Amino acid sequence: MSVSGIGVDLRCRCIETESRRMVKLIQSVEMFPPSAHCKDTEIIATLKRTGQKICLDPTAPWVKKVIQRILKNKRP
Amino acid sequence: MSVSGIGVDLRCRCIETESRRMVKLIQSVEMFPPSAHCKDTEIIATLKRTGQKICLDPTAPWVKKVIQRILKNKRP
Repeated sequence: MSVSGIGVDLRCRCIETESRRMVKLIQSVEMFPPSAHCKDTEIIATLKRTGQKICLDPTAPWVKKVIQRILKNKRP
Repeated sequence: MSVSGIGVDLRCRCIETESRRMVKLIQSVEMFPPSAHCKDTEIIATLKRTGQKICLDPTAPWVKKVIQRILKNKRP
């Protein structure tokens, strides 16, 4: 769930991922592919209203579904 | 290609989208689902090195492929 050092690309941004389904709270989603500094894809969602940033689990089915819905021009 | 008013959620962020395949230049990708202020999904990529932000076409096959690759824990 925690986000550390956004903008700094020297280590992974996410310490842990949010396990709760927060589909309706998602305003936008940022995806970071694996890089020299972090071996796994990281997905960080910005929440509505609060603007809070949370890390999502790229392997969670609900997270994949959210991404696919956005790609299909639908709201999460 | 242009990005206008990032962070301001009162209108669409993208004026036009980049048609060239810039796969290898992509550092991260931000996805904005349709909202009250913009009826279509917007995808904004941040490029390596320059940090330049460009709008991608969510319906372009190469863009969808980039997203799917990131979801699968691969580099674009």
